[in-house]
Amino acid sequence: MQYVAPEKDAQFLMFDLFRAQEIWSGIPAFGDFSQDLVEAVIAEGAKINGQVVAPTNAIGDLQGCTWNSGQVTTPEAFKGAFTQIAQGGWLGLAGNPEFGGQGMPKMLASLIEEMFWAANTSLYLYGTLTIGACVCIEAHGTPQQKALYLPKLYSGQWTGAMALTESHAGTDLGIMRSKATPHADGSYRISGTKIFITSGEHDLAENIVHLTLAKLPDAPAGTKGISLFIVPKFLPNEDASLGSRNAWASGSLEHKMGIRGSATSVINYDGATAYLLGEENQGLAAMFSMMNYERLSVGLQGLGAGEVAYQLSSRYAKDRLQGRSAQGAENPNAAADSLLVHPDVRRMLLTQRAYNEAGRAFALFVGLQLDLAKYTDDEQAQALSELLTPVAKAFLTDKGFEGAVMAQQVFGGHGYVHEWGIEQIVRDARIGQIYEGTNGVQALDLISRKTLRDGGQTLYAFIDRMAADPIAAPFDEALTAAFERLRRVTGYLVDHSPDDVHLAGSVSTEFLELVGHTIYGWLWARMATIAPADDFGQSKRVTAEFFFARLLPKTLGFEASICQSTNTVMALPADRF
Amino acid sequence: MQYVAPEKDAQFLMFDLFRAQEIWSGIPAFGDFSQDLVEAVIAEGAKINGQVVAPTNAIGDLQGCTWNSGQVTTPEAFKGAFTQIAQGGWLGLAGNPEFGGQGMPKMLASLIEEMFWAANTSLYLYGTLTIGACVCIEAHGTPQQKALYLPKLYSGQWTGAMALTESHAGTDLGIMRSKATPHADGSYRISGTKIFITSGEHDLAENIVHLTLAKLPDAPAGTKGISLFIVPKFLPNEDASLGSRNAWASGSLEHKMGIRGSATSVINYDGATAYLLGEENQGLAAMFSMMNYERLSVGLQGLGAGEVAYQLSSRYAKDRLQGRSAQGAENPNAAADSLLVHPDVRRMLLTQRAYNEAGRAFALFVGLQLDLAKYTDDEQAQALSELLTPVAKAFLTDKGFEGAVMAQQVFGGHGYVHEWGIEQIVRDARIGQIYEGTNGVQALDLISRKTLRDGGQTLYAFIDRMAADPIAAPFDEALTAAFERLRRVTGYLVDHSPDDVHLAGSVSTEFLELVGHTIYGWLWARMATIAPADDFGQSKRVTAEFFFARLLPKTLGFEASICQSTNTVMALPADRF
Repeated sequence: MQYVAPEKDAQFLMFDLFRAQEIWSGIPAFGDFSQDLVEAVIAEGAKINGQVVAPTNAIGDLQGCTWNSGQVTTPEAFKGAFTQIAQGGWLGLAGNPEFGGQGMPKMLASLIEEMFWAANTSLYLYGTLTIGACVCIEAHGTPQQKALYLPKLYSGQWTGAMALTESHAGTDLGIMRSKATPHADGSYRISGTKIFITSGEHDLAENIVHLTLAKLPDAPAGTKGISLFIVPKFLPNEDASLGSRNAWASGSLEHKMGIRGSATSVINYDGATAYLLGEENQGLAAMFSMMNYERLSVGLQGLGAGEVAYQLSSRYAKDRLQGRSAQGAENPNAAADSLLVHPDVRRMLLTQRAYNEAGRAFALFVGLQLDLAKYTDDEQAQALSELLTPVAKAFLTDKGFEGAVMAQQVFGGHGYVHEWGIEQIVRDARIGQIYEGTNGVQALDLISRKTLRDGGQTLYAFIDRMAADPIAAPFDEALTAAFERLRRVTGYLVDHSPDDVHLAGSVSTEFLELVGHTIYGWLWARMATIAPADDFGQSKRVTAEFFFARLLPKTLGFEASICQSTNTVMALPADRF
Repeated sequence: MQYVAPEKDAQFLMFDLFRAQEIWSGIPAFGDFSQDLVEAVIAEGAKINGQVVAPTNAIGDLQGCTWNSGQVTTPEAFKGAFTQIAQGGWLGLAGNPEFGGQGMPKMLASLIEEMFWAANTSLYLYGTLTIGACVCIEAHGTPQQKALYLPKLYSGQWTGAMALTESHAGTDLGIMRSKATPHADGSYRISGTKIFITSGEHDLAENIVHLTLAKLPDAPAGTKGISLFIVPKFLPNEDASLGSRNAWASGSLEHKMGIRGSATSVINYDGATAYLLGEENQGLAAMFSMMNYERLSVGLQGLGAGEVAYQLSSRYAKDRLQGRSAQGAENPNAAADSLLVHPDVRRMLLTQRAYNEAGRAFALFVGLQLDLAKYTDDEQAQALSELLTPVAKAFLTDKGFEGAVMAQQVFGGHGYVHEWGIEQIVRDARIGQIYEGTNGVQALDLISRKTLRDGGQTLYAFIDRMAADPIAAPFDEALTAAFERLRRVTGYLVDHSPDDVHLAGSVSTEFLELVGHTIYGWLWARMATIAPADDFGQSKRVTAEFFFARLLPKTLGFEASICQSTNTVMALPADRF
């Protein structure tokens, strides 16, 4: 699979749209990052993904993972590429420099993450779970735990995994059954079975560090009785050398629709030695403290899928000769014109592009808020990152999947067979909408916890902030109308939710779509306003016009659907379904 | 996989909504079909699909098809089921009684087809290609050809295949390269390579009859130089016994995203003996004469996928305990409530259901028009069937795929693994949007040939006809507004298309969505108006309310997107993609 990282767009967004250098210059931790250095990181990320990672994508899907008596073998093509990712320091990019990380901003890491997801989603899952484990250990680990685990994880010698789900307990973690019992030496013993454990067992690293949720014997019921544990495959000695094999094993691999190069295990814990991470019974809170960070990363998976799908389909549309332009042959010496003469094909490509480029801008904006929240005392950034995280996770993965499906459509029948690569992107992209909290859960989080709980104040403040930006004609009027629509709908929900306990849940998905489209309208208007007067800038303005003319109007339907006069969603008795 | 055919809904639509008995009583060919007989056919269709066909679906996907030196082996589970389908006479259901068909209305056959598609799309493809070949041979064959081929095909002893696509020529058949040369005995010899040939080679029947498009040596360029041929695997003697093996072979099987039990071959013709079907150079017209019929069938594939996806996801939602109702525990004795307490889950189920049930009504309506066009001199029915065929093909397959994706979302992580069956439905449903003319091609057909070419007259007449039906409150006002919107948008397109040659192609997909949603609004309003005063009727009314409140409002966005002030779709030079 051929993939070219969007370097120019990345630089435009980072330096022209968001003026990252100006912001970073006020943050001591980022003071050392010159524009040259950042551009070099982007260029190196583009290089390893285009040259090393992307070529392993299609073959990894075909080879898949195999299980044999608890041993899991990853696609042969993955081993060399993962070693290069690890040795290149890519997993520690935003990690704590005290323990071997490179301390780079999440805003920059987001650009790099998009590239890895685009180049090979399955392969990068071994990396992103590792990064997630690091975020969690850094936030909640003891000094000894940090010193022992972080350097090994940042360097990719060890990898991470999150063990949350049980077969009967997915979104509802409070009903999990895995048990942890205290042991005399201060450690614990875990027994139980977890499913859907991404990178839970594999052969790419010398050790695998599970972060596992389980209940202590005397734990309160529900989510308040869950504790978080470090459960390594090999118990490390103090010097990080490997000791004995721990008592857990992969019971089987899941047979998945996509991400087939990613090993997803059932993990059986049979009195496995475990070390408490954070406080007893505070496991869910500890796990969720890394969720904002991780959820943006899964959003970036959607963006990466959307980007590589766009690249594959636009390349195909240019090369494929089929039919003639409605205004006469454009390529009269050939048997047919390219697919690009067909307006509906262009509609599909421009739709993908409009969501991808706004999505990239949005991801960087959220990454910036996470940086400001982590490295400064900007309280608005903290509130904003919490408001926008569910949007980033759900909207980016929804649009990534829809874009991949649209790209597949551009290929016609060739889109349905493996050799062109796009059907794999569709299968791989689908999981982003499901894991790390389904997109329905994200929508409920946005509308209930992040919007209605404070009477819409955080959202209103964000709208005011967006509306304060200078916007060029012809986008200013339409954008103002979009802001008014979002204010109106938010007001409707704030006013009517107290009378209808099911209203928020009934319209949560449309509300998230409305919020996402409004933010993308703002970003497109901003990009068009500041875009340079060259070809790159003209493409931005045309795509912005397309977004305002063809995609933003969906918000009319969302408003009407949300502000319905009667809510019939709960009207049927359960046995009628 | 468990599947229960929607018998009650089928009867409601056929006898209450469309009053088929009254219509059929005026058609001599259908005079013999009593309501009892029709209900018995529906019941038998439900039985074979629930008991025999559906259980082969998941295993067929796992087993797939294998190729060995030109021999194609289908999933082991398919053989017994296909024999039962063939021997049950299901392939000749709507076939010509003169040659062994049962002469039933397409309206009834549509119901049965939906069941087969739902129960096992891959398996039914061996049947539907056979039915398609019969339609074509019946319309264009000589009396000898009909007498020789139709009885064997109706009985499923032989099966059919359509060989159109070449690797460089999909939608644009005019540039195909396969050659047919006349032979002294009146037959022809075909050489060339076709790809994506569904059921082109397999082991379920004793003979396989290809209908193959090729060009004669002196043929005009483009689509006017294409002829259609019968190219059987074994050359039949006059008594339909099998003679020598013909000179074509499967070169390989396609590695597809889904419908893995369906054998899709590359077919190499190496001077294969072929018999002209219809007139020389009239092949494309002959092939397209069956397209209305076939395109409705592919639409029914989408409907079947949507229906079985709904069944799987609603069953899962009832059984799966996860989380608590927002108004307090509904199932306090269990660890959690069912998924049905969550409004967003119900939104997904009701959305699927609203599209499925309106889609079933729509398919029957289109089937009725095809029957009236074929068996009576109702010219409006002919025009209407031509107008609505692209909508049926595209809208039903789009909504079927979207419904399957939504159903998959209801399953959470379990939706992504094979064992629950739903990820297969998603993969299988995807092809319906691509083959038999991509949905983009359908949208262009609807807007250009079926709408703009006659200045919108056929569409306006259909709107008038729909608007003449009695509609109960509260649906009447909203439906009137929907009709006005569609008239307004059609008028806009009629007025503006002459000034912008790319306008129609730029907005064709939204226009098809607008037409589809408006028709579904009519059908939901009609169903709600006539639904009985029992639980079944109340479910209809609630679902109609849901459709009007939550799905019909999408048309606001379609109107705004179509009636944009400037069309920027063609603005970028090709090298900017």
